[in-house]
Amino acid sequence: MSKQVAVILSGCGVQDGSEIYETTLTLLRLDQLGIGYRCFAPDIDQHDVVDHRSGEAAREERRNVLTESARLARGEISPLDELDAGDFDAVILPGGFGAAKTLSNFAEAGADMVIHDGLIEVMAEFREERKPIGLMCIAPVMVPRLLGPGIAVTIGHDPGVAGAISSMGGLHRSCSVEDIVVDFENRVVTTPAYMLATRIGEAATGIFKLVDRIDEMMDL
Amino acid sequence: MSKQVAVILSGCGVQDGSEIYETTLTLLRLDQLGIGYRCFAPDIDQHDVVDHRSGEAAREERRNVLTESARLARGEISPLDELDAGDFDAVILPGGFGAAKTLSNFAEAGADMVIHDGLIEVMAEFREERKPIGLMCIAPVMVPRLLGPGIAVTIGHDPGVAGAISSMGGLHRSCSVEDIVVDFENRVVTTPAYMLATRIGEAATGIFKLVDRIDEMMDL
Repeated sequence: MSKQVAVILSGCGVQDGSEIYETTLTLLRLDQLGIGYRCFAPDIDQHDVVDHRSGEAAREERRNVLTESARLARGEISPLDELDAGDFDAVILPGGFGAAKTLSNFAEAGADMVIHDGLIEVMAEFREERKPIGLMCIAPVMVPRLLGPGIAVTIGHDPGVAGAISSMGGLHRSCSVEDIVVDFENRVVTTPAYMLATRIGEAATGIFKLVDRIDEMMDL
Repeated sequence: MSKQVAVILSGCGVQDGSEIYETTLTLLRLDQLGIGYRCFAPDIDQHDVVDHRSGEAAREERRNVLTESARLARGEISPLDELDAGDFDAVILPGGFGAAKTLSNFAEAGADMVIHDGLIEVMAEFREERKPIGLMCIAPVMVPRLLGPGIAVTIGHDPGVAGAISSMGGLHRSCSVEDIVVDFENRVVTTPAYMLATRIGEAATGIFKLVDRIDEMMDL
């Protein structure tokens, strides 16, 4: 029986959902390592819908997070409330603004953010069972609230976001796009991905390292 | 100055647009090889919008091909009618049902299909300039109408689609998911991708081979 990893999505597109390349590269690396995976997303409305051509919010439009995430998962997806940490060996959260607008409201509230209840619940289970947790791009900003204070993470080197992490009790480490930050004790691995990437190949290097490290940690 | 490849999209999602993994893996490999790229898509409505969770058409919804394709390109995209073959060294078309429902109507009309005028025009320029052309998944079904008869392509081994290609004057070659079919004389490279893939790693192997071959052909 191969290792199994849960991947938690927040829509389909960098501006209002999960970053598409980050998600695809995560799934590619998991598959290349012979690791099975299942995607999950909350069955709620997106915070907003952004026209990715113009960058403007499409104010009349509503889209469902689970339905749009299903595009990224080729239909192979389940509602987040069906995710049981007991069925998986690790969990990974790609980035994209969905993590800061739908899974949390960090984009609006900064360090006063609130995180989606269902995500808090299931991540607490992974943490309690000491299963490795990977987060990339903006998603690590949720770590102090989601997993507790004193956990080392990276979002690259944006001073505003790094400061917010510190003010919530987190530990921010600067990191280049092709590298990862590992908190061995807390079993958390993070990489900047599209917080810093200017080319998809750069993002891939960091994300592949993250997945490789999660793979190793599942054995420990 | 690095080589430049145009990538033509048809939306964002396997059921009604460009296949997300095929597109991402194409861009990854281009970038890994140091090849520049630009994405293009027609500024028209999608044929339909499919709920990727249920697989059902969402009959009230309308989405624009260029706007949705912009998700896959992180906003870095141009209208197809601005694509000038003279600015690029090759062109690649990922698959997904957008190729069979929006770029063409193959899904409805089979061998009687009609292809989007703007696509016909620009592909004729690439062909005339003898620049390499890559197509994957269902997209190669357009080759006999788009580029002319007698060109060897693959869509894997689906007898119905292969038969349609033959009946339009094309040459179909059976091919496994991790391989490519190359028509050297006509400078066309194809791979089955998600016509056959059951895992993303399989699709990646064939797609990386396709991009590698296009890279070599640009030197010849």
